[in-house]
Amino acid sequence: MILLLGGSGYVGTAFRQLLDTKSISYRSVARADVDYTQRDSLIHLIRETNPSFLINAAGYSGKPNVDACELHRSDCLFGNAVLPGVIREACEQTNLRWGHVSSGCIFTGAKPDGSGFTESDRPNFSFRTNNCSFYSGCKALGEEVLEGAENCYIWRLRIPFNNVDSPRNYISKLMNYDCLLSARNSLSELSDFVAACLHCAQNDVAPGIYNLTNPGDVTTEDVVEMISRHGLSNKKFRFFASEDEFMQVAAKTPRSNCVLDSSKAVAAGIQLPDVHDALEAAMKNWES
Amino acid sequence: MILLLGGSGYVGTAFRQLLDTKSISYRSVARADVDYTQRDSLIHLIRETNPSFLINAAGYSGKPNVDACELHRSDCLFGNAVLPGVIREACEQTNLRWGHVSSGCIFTGAKPDGSGFTESDRPNFSFRTNNCSFYSGCKALGEEVLEGAENCYIWRLRIPFNNVDSPRNYISKLMNYDCLLSARNSLSELSDFVAACLHCAQNDVAPGIYNLTNPGDVTTEDVVEMISRHGLSNKKFRFFASEDEFMQVAAKTPRSNCVLDSSKAVAAGIQLPDVHDALEAAMKNWES
Repeated sequence: MILLLGGSGYVGTAFRQLLDTKSISYRSVARADVDYTQRDSLIHLIRETNPSFLINAAGYSGKPNVDACELHRSDCLFGNAVLPGVIREACEQTNLRWGHVSSGCIFTGAKPDGSGFTESDRPNFSFRTNNCSFYSGCKALGEEVLEGAENCYIWRLRIPFNNVDSPRNYISKLMNYDCLLSARNSLSELSDFVAACLHCAQNDVAPGIYNLTNPGDVTTEDVVEMISRHGLSNKKFRFFASEDEFMQVAAKTPRSNCVLDSSKAVAAGIQLPDVHDALEAAMKNWES
Repeated sequence: MILLLGGSGYVGTAFRQLLDTKSISYRSVARADVDYTQRDSLIHLIRETNPSFLINAAGYSGKPNVDACELHRSDCLFGNAVLPGVIREACEQTNLRWGHVSSGCIFTGAKPDGSGFTESDRPNFSFRTNNCSFYSGCKALGEEVLEGAENCYIWRLRIPFNNVDSPRNYISKLMNYDCLLSARNSLSELSDFVAACLHCAQNDVAPGIYNLTNPGDVTTEDVVEMISRHGLSNKKFRFFASEDEFMQVAAKTPRSNCVLDSSKAVAAGIQLPDVHDALEAAMKNWES
């Protein structure tokens, strides 16, 4: 049995759908029922339910977007940096394998040769580099809190999308914004992401950090071209002239745009289709 | 009535003693009785007890010293960065004036001319400057969480001491360490510090950040000379050859050593004796 925390969120819902589809036994715990943010309550829950694995899909990402985290700093710190540490302690005390949904948004840009950051690179979009949003700072601290954790996976999600229209889906976001920021990014197709996590839970994958992005990277313009070509929108997309204009007009806090290298995950036997193929498939099967 | 959180700690105990001495009505709340780290519980407590002021002396400082915070990152983040935000929300919702015990350890060194950092200087020993202990990083984040807080005092304590031997007293620490680090620091005499905080609570002092150190600064050698002269110890004090040696031999994480400017507090009518006078008085009345 898998214990799922944060099962009602965007990522948590995708986990539930996958576990349902695969008929894998799980328990999705709502914080209103068991306050799993309290270590002793979580330990009690683990002992009571005796899971073989725990998935932490809980976190604080801000609504409607990451700008909200600038105002709710305490909640953001708690959900993204303190809570992983609480879960770590509970899982280490009960000798439970587990995984934490982290984020690739703790990086910005790409390596000088254009390749992506690997798991051995230090985050360069964090409080420590003093160039980040409060959200990214908290996610990076969350990974620091998990340094040296036993039997723990850190799964980095990066700009999720899939074939279902949703305010959290990157494809939907691009269609709904008035004006877009030109940038190059790695992305995570959501069902590929949760399947990759489940692969870790069910197989003998070495614990540690994994960049779970679909191999490759795309520009905003690439994705917009696909949106138009697949007829998802007939909108004429507009772009900000620069990141400066974007920051002045549309955003309160800097956004991470980055390329990640997911070859460690692929080498570990995790299946991740190329990002272009994943985008094409999502748009071909688009459900609005 | 004053509501006191963290009343059982080193600083909290000094608050209780001062309030007892002055016959000021207060309620010291233990977390075991009311979980004031939960916003709704704290709001309920405030509505039930109707205090005129709240003092937050709760925090996580690590035992026996700040190195412990490197291991207990989640607790350190929660106690020093998340909790102030929870209290802020509760106090803003109940329109309650309050003060938070912060720390001067979010600075290192002094200004180029040797003068101290003021309240308008940005912390230079924090995650954002990437040179700090995990503890200092968390304390600095705690101040970020309180940016723009209404009716809130941020009281910066810095290396507390008084005339009573204690593992937390700077004078005792210097006498007990095998070897000392040569450094220049501002210090806070503990009874002066809590009296300064109470002055804010009881008078029309403008809310905001206050460096509550005794004016002036001292070197480790200055304090050791006083210890010997007052006969507190006849030990021959040894010093590390350099901060590098200190880091290699005795410490897991860098220590803040800094000079702070407390003239804003003095200008606000807060009484703070010169640090040399305060040290002399503490040693003259030493209770071991």
